[in-house]
Amino acid sequence: MSAKVVPPAPWPVEPWAIREPHLDLEELARTESVFALSNGHLGLRGNLDEGEPRGISGTYVNGFHESFPLEYGESGYGFAEDGQSLVDVQDGKVIHLMLEDEPVDVLRGEVLAHERVLDFKTGTLDRAMHYRSTYGREVKITTRRLVSFTQRSTAAILYEIEAVSGPMRIALQSNLMANVPAQSGTKDPRKGKDLGDVLEPRLARGFELRAVLAHTTRNSKMTCAAGMEHVILSDASNLHTAIYVEDDLGRATLSCQIKPGRPFRFVKFMAYHWSSRQSPEFLRDQVTASLANATAEGWEGLLRDQRTFLDRFWEKADIELEGDEAVQQALRFSLFHLLQAGARIEGRAIAAKGLTGPGYDGHAFWDTETFVLPWMTYVMPEVVRHALLWRHSILPQARERAHMLGMGGATMPWRTIHGEECSGYWPAGSAALHVNGDVADAVRRYIDATHDDAFAAAEGGELLVETARLWISAGTYDHAGNFRIDGVTGPDEYSALVDNNVFTNLGAQSNLRAAADTAARLPELVETMEITDDEIAAWRKASDAMYLPYDERLGVHPQDQGFLLHDPWDFGGTPADCYPLLLNYPYFQLYRRQVLKQADLVLGIHLHGDQFTPEQKRRDFDYYEGLTVRDSSLSACTQAIVAAEVGHLDLAYDYLREAAFVDLHDLHHNTSDGLHIASLAGAVLGITNGFGGMRDSGGRLRFSPRLPTDVPSIRFAVTVRGARLRVSVDQERARYELETGDELTFEHWGEEVRVVNGTPLERPTPAVEDLPRPKQPPGREPARRDG
Amino acid sequence: MSAKVVPPAPWPVEPWAIREPHLDLEELARTESVFALSNGHLGLRGNLDEGEPRGISGTYVNGFHESFPLEYGESGYGFAEDGQSLVDVQDGKVIHLMLEDEPVDVLRGEVLAHERVLDFKTGTLDRAMHYRSTYGREVKITTRRLVSFTQRSTAAILYEIEAVSGPMRIALQSNLMANVPAQSGTKDPRKGKDLGDVLEPRLARGFELRAVLAHTTRNSKMTCAAGMEHVILSDASNLHTAIYVEDDLGRATLSCQIKPGRPFRFVKFMAYHWSSRQSPEFLRDQVTASLANATAEGWEGLLRDQRTFLDRFWEKADIELEGDEAVQQALRFSLFHLLQAGARIEGRAIAAKGLTGPGYDGHAFWDTETFVLPWMTYVMPEVVRHALLWRHSILPQARERAHMLGMGGATMPWRTIHGEECSGYWPAGSAALHVNGDVADAVRRYIDATHDDAFAAAEGGELLVETARLWISAGTYDHAGNFRIDGVTGPDEYSALVDNNVFTNLGAQSNLRAAADTAARLPELVETMEITDDEIAAWRKASDAMYLPYDERLGVHPQDQGFLLHDPWDFGGTPADCYPLLLNYPYFQLYRRQVLKQADLVLGIHLHGDQFTPEQKRRDFDYYEGLTVRDSSLSACTQAIVAAEVGHLDLAYDYLREAAFVDLHDLHHNTSDGLHIASLAGAVLGITNGFGGMRDSGGRLRFSPRLPTDVPSIRFAVTVRGARLRVSVDQERARYELETGDELTFEHWGEEVRVVNGTPLERPTPAVEDLPRPKQPPGREPARRDG
Repeated sequence: MSAKVVPPAPWPVEPWAIREPHLDLEELARTESVFALSNGHLGLRGNLDEGEPRGISGTYVNGFHESFPLEYGESGYGFAEDGQSLVDVQDGKVIHLMLEDEPVDVLRGEVLAHERVLDFKTGTLDRAMHYRSTYGREVKITTRRLVSFTQRSTAAILYEIEAVSGPMRIALQSNLMANVPAQSGTKDPRKGKDLGDVLEPRLARGFELRAVLAHTTRNSKMTCAAGMEHVILSDASNLHTAIYVEDDLGRATLSCQIKPGRPFRFVKFMAYHWSSRQSPEFLRDQVTASLANATAEGWEGLLRDQRTFLDRFWEKADIELEGDEAVQQALRFSLFHLLQAGARIEGRAIAAKGLTGPGYDGHAFWDTETFVLPWMTYVMPEVVRHALLWRHSILPQARERAHMLGMGGATMPWRTIHGEECSGYWPAGSAALHVNGDVADAVRRYIDATHDDAFAAAEGGELLVETARLWISAGTYDHAGNFRIDGVTGPDEYSALVDNNVFTNLGAQSNLRAAADTAARLPELVETMEITDDEIAAWRKASDAMYLPYDERLGVHPQDQGFLLHDPWDFGGTPADCYPLLLNYPYFQLYRRQVLKQADLVLGIHLHGDQFTPEQKRRDFDYYEGLTVRDSSLSACTQAIVAAEVGHLDLAYDYLREAAFVDLHDLHHNTSDGLHIASLAGAVLGITNGFGGMRDSGGRLRFSPRLPTDVPSIRFAVTVRGARLRVSVDQERARYELETGDELTFEHWGEEVRVVNGTPLERPTPAVEDLPRPKQPPGREPARRDG
Repeated sequence: MSAKVVPPAPWPVEPWAIREPHLDLEELARTESVFALSNGHLGLRGNLDEGEPRGISGTYVNGFHESFPLEYGESGYGFAEDGQSLVDVQDGKVIHLMLEDEPVDVLRGEVLAHERVLDFKTGTLDRAMHYRSTYGREVKITTRRLVSFTQRSTAAILYEIEAVSGPMRIALQSNLMANVPAQSGTKDPRKGKDLGDVLEPRLARGFELRAVLAHTTRNSKMTCAAGMEHVILSDASNLHTAIYVEDDLGRATLSCQIKPGRPFRFVKFMAYHWSSRQSPEFLRDQVTASLANATAEGWEGLLRDQRTFLDRFWEKADIELEGDEAVQQALRFSLFHLLQAGARIEGRAIAAKGLTGPGYDGHAFWDTETFVLPWMTYVMPEVVRHALLWRHSILPQARERAHMLGMGGATMPWRTIHGEECSGYWPAGSAALHVNGDVADAVRRYIDATHDDAFAAAEGGELLVETARLWISAGTYDHAGNFRIDGVTGPDEYSALVDNNVFTNLGAQSNLRAAADTAARLPELVETMEITDDEIAAWRKASDAMYLPYDERLGVHPQDQGFLLHDPWDFGGTPADCYPLLLNYPYFQLYRRQVLKQADLVLGIHLHGDQFTPEQKRRDFDYYEGLTVRDSSLSACTQAIVAAEVGHLDLAYDYLREAAFVDLHDLHHNTSDGLHIASLAGAVLGITNGFGGMRDSGGRLRFSPRLPTDVPSIRFAVTVRGARLRVSVDQERARYELETGDELTFEHWGEEVRVVNGTPLERPTPAVEDLPRPKQPPGREPARRDG
């Protein structure tokens, strides 16, 4: 029996959608995350149209946040001063409905049928409800909601109601509401900082069926203007309309007679604009302009553009897997939400939860660069560029932070929205230097994959150089000439403040080399950043001398220099309900034992495999399998990838499934706070980098495809410098076909191959010996597939 | 030029007092600490009688505190939940004076003369002021204040006023005030938690010239009742008196005519009682009873008892040093305040600041056991017993804390008033396990010095056993059979969360041995604590196998296992005004470098010297001298002691002077918050353990006296099992004389000697080679004596 049994799939298996066949009020918070719509700029959680009941209400605009002082029991020099929290802005999703004198309320009336569908091809959330009121009034309500990929400030809802039981008068109240408590139930302190009413009203206007509200946050002084406009699509009998506004409310009221067979339909358009500098009046004009564009385009126009946008996306992004339709569905779910998280960020961050919920206060972390961008680079490199431009935009804060921490160059925040370090826990907020290597690796990968030398000579190069400078100041040579980096916190959060975390040092090594290579190649960069030859030489020297501790006695790499000296965690004495460990044991005990929240060294093997021999990879993987409890959603995907590489294909498939189901099956019990965007990306990497064996370190694109016996075939595409390569793998061979571009050179199982357009290439895949499964901590084995 | 130049002594040098010859308003907060009176139960800061101006007002009753939730930017399992802060209780020190219609106010009138004297023999704070008002009214005011050593709830003020310029009517308002803001000026956040008005009024009564107030703290629900009574000692012309009470104020008003040559005198008696259980009415009766006793005894009676008490103290405690009268004075100042901190604690803690100020929120730390008790054991063992009974009384909280942290036995709090861990910084509050070894060492020392087997079989034994159990659960055997203790924080606060901190391991080793020895000796203890033979064997085995890392290459002990791998701090690049480092650099940088706030390993050499060879001690001392910046007031004294031992007598004297002047010269710039009680004790240990070479580890009392050339002689006494041994050392010889008791056996420079009463023993002291001075970090050398 495993502690991580995957529950029965709550979703009917189908290839291009997530369907909820009936309403489950207990699961509202989770389904709101699963059904969230976003374009990376504007995000709406999948709240019911009525607004209540709700799990967590959420309407987010990327970057719009409130700040607040961080409190400390005992403070210290350089502790982060202010927190930042994504703000739930004006909520335009709410449409109340009154049937004669009875409000439609799923807690009160009878829900005869209820279905919601998130459609990956239309990019809409569709809802159909057949409802009967206490006094027997029956209606069918159909709504379709979208957040436009093509008009980034715009969302829209098509609302249709039809009388079933007989004619009746209805009143629809279409609201735009500010300072709505996010939750209607009790508070759970894990869900993010509760800031109270942070939006101060600045402007409220109504005209005909349009309303605009503008609000400014109390401390961070950001202003968000939101507007709604309504277009009635059907004749309505005895229609009365009204618009009403007050500080925190805009309301359009539509009252009319409806009767069976004559549905009443209207569209609600919404638009959001925010700024730290512009006035509420200026923003109001932008909102009104966006509403004008949206109404001009009309519902059908928005829907058509959405469809076209998605068709293009799937052409580049789709991943096919034979053998398990639920996994296939989960992969497309992942891809769809990855698109939603990134599509229109335009210089803002991709947060850990995207715009799907308030978890982690809306902060972005290292995992975007480490999990999301490695996938995105080969599908939507233009978005990767924007994500890295965001990192570039926060370089001033990162330089200041490095200076405060006594280092040169720049050090990226552990968690932030706006660029300032927001972690109230300094072993992460000051010592998790690996985030710099992660950012640099994403820059390096993007440049390798796109040859975007304009970016490499400017923003990308600056990022590489400033992080390289950081490492030089953060490390030191020991008496034996090794370059050491002491006192850091690696990715694994069950250790902190260690010397020579191998993952960190690998990242620093690659970072220094990339900076040196890029500077050597691009004289503009050398000039702008005032790089001397000595500096480049120092980067190369430190990179070459980077200390990667290795334990000869055990024949494995220690996660960090002192790690293997510690006692293993007492897994046998840890009850199943004491996971995740961090909620049941103090850091004091976790840090001083051999126990991993997430694959740390194994992640190093994935991203910097050149630095390990095959034998080392096998031994390291097996050793750390016994210590990794996967309390982090970022673990299973990495374990899947490296398990596949070292010869545990069956285990890799188990981990892949776990990664794929993290949110759909709520494996970490907090999908309600938002989706795990990096984990969704990790599941996709499990296919491309796991079964596809794709690697791209050292500037060489490589595939070593291998499939578990249960997987007859996989197919995916990667786009490299405009050339789209379709990779199809079955149990015997791999097929490489260029769909766009002229030619592409890469490696297949170590052999350099070249594919030209029109001439697919086939290569056999070597038989991979499936090794005996390593042992995981008891009760922490991945769930195994049936049979 | 040293960064730590000792400023010109602000105090006239005299043997038995600290005298302030004129009022310095800039220095009020510091002099209030220096002039604080306390008996360990009740403490009054040396505020001016008028109450204002003031630095920090303070009236404290040991243990009486408020609690409040600790805030965290990011919380974690097992983080301390509530803070505790010593409460400034009802202030009875204030006596306002009106000359006709002019209030006496040193900011307003002219202070023609002003002197304050803290007298070590009378135990009083005396003040004499010659004051002229704006309109020329001249008076002489003399006050004498005491906190009684013999009546622990009682304080008293003798107040005398004499007209100088001519007859006048005066009004005296003698107050008892609650919820007075501690400071009249601006707030400084370092001075301790500002809790606002924490005292809720419960009772206020006045009768004749007596008033009693009772207040209860808002959260901790402790009640303190305070009362005052007045006795007029002189005839007064036209005397009118009144008593007035309101919630936060009791006021006795004395109005009379005074004229030159006829001083008006009265005594104000104060009494304080507090409880968590008793009602305000019950406490009121206790206060009234204490006031009745005090008035019955009368001012002269209290004064006489105070003198007698102090005579007895000095007989046992005095330390004489020839050659520097300022140091002599500072040593007596230290001894006097040590007495004040401990005398009447009766089961409560001795806090880091005693009852002299609000610093560290009134918390007790490990330094009481490590610096104060080693002195006190040989002078006032009965107080040590009480201090250890306090530790025993908090065993339930310490057991619970150990359980929460996943360990057996009990773990003592890093900082507390009431026993619960109050540190908001978990690397101290969870990982500073050495506090347990420190407590055990104090228990072991007390038992060795007193043979108090009743205590050893009960409370003392329990402390030894529960801490031994902690170590067994905290440590582990490595593959080579060493007993390791990982992930701890040692005394040095510029490191944290390290493996095998040598000081911690030495303490654990001694703790385990003491527990095993005590259990083997006392069957009652074995029975009460259910100790098995296996358990005792396990203690001995772990003690014998304790890992004390040693670096063969450098030939020194690392402070902890990884310490010597780190880069040294860049002392050359650290400006003088960037000390203390912790206010100018992040923990992130401090922890990953070789730099010490305070002597850590050197403290291990002092307390557990048996575990080092003389050569190791020399090498270790010299090595760590180059890394120790003495940002902690607990450093210089330990450096003095070990410098003397290893052959740096001149350097030892410099450090001794620094330790002796920590508060009198405000070397750490925070004497205003209260005195550094452990540092005061450290200065005294600098004589006994430094120049006297006294050691007591392993159950053997030893002296190896040696004096720097500038010190012609020292004299001190130690009381062991009722026998008081006077030790007199000059440049050639040591003289040992038994003043009480029959005989005593100890070692002189390794030779076992026996002294019997009536027959002093003399032994030559070997010439000690004064080695070349080791190097300290530039700018952090101790101040050198003139010439």
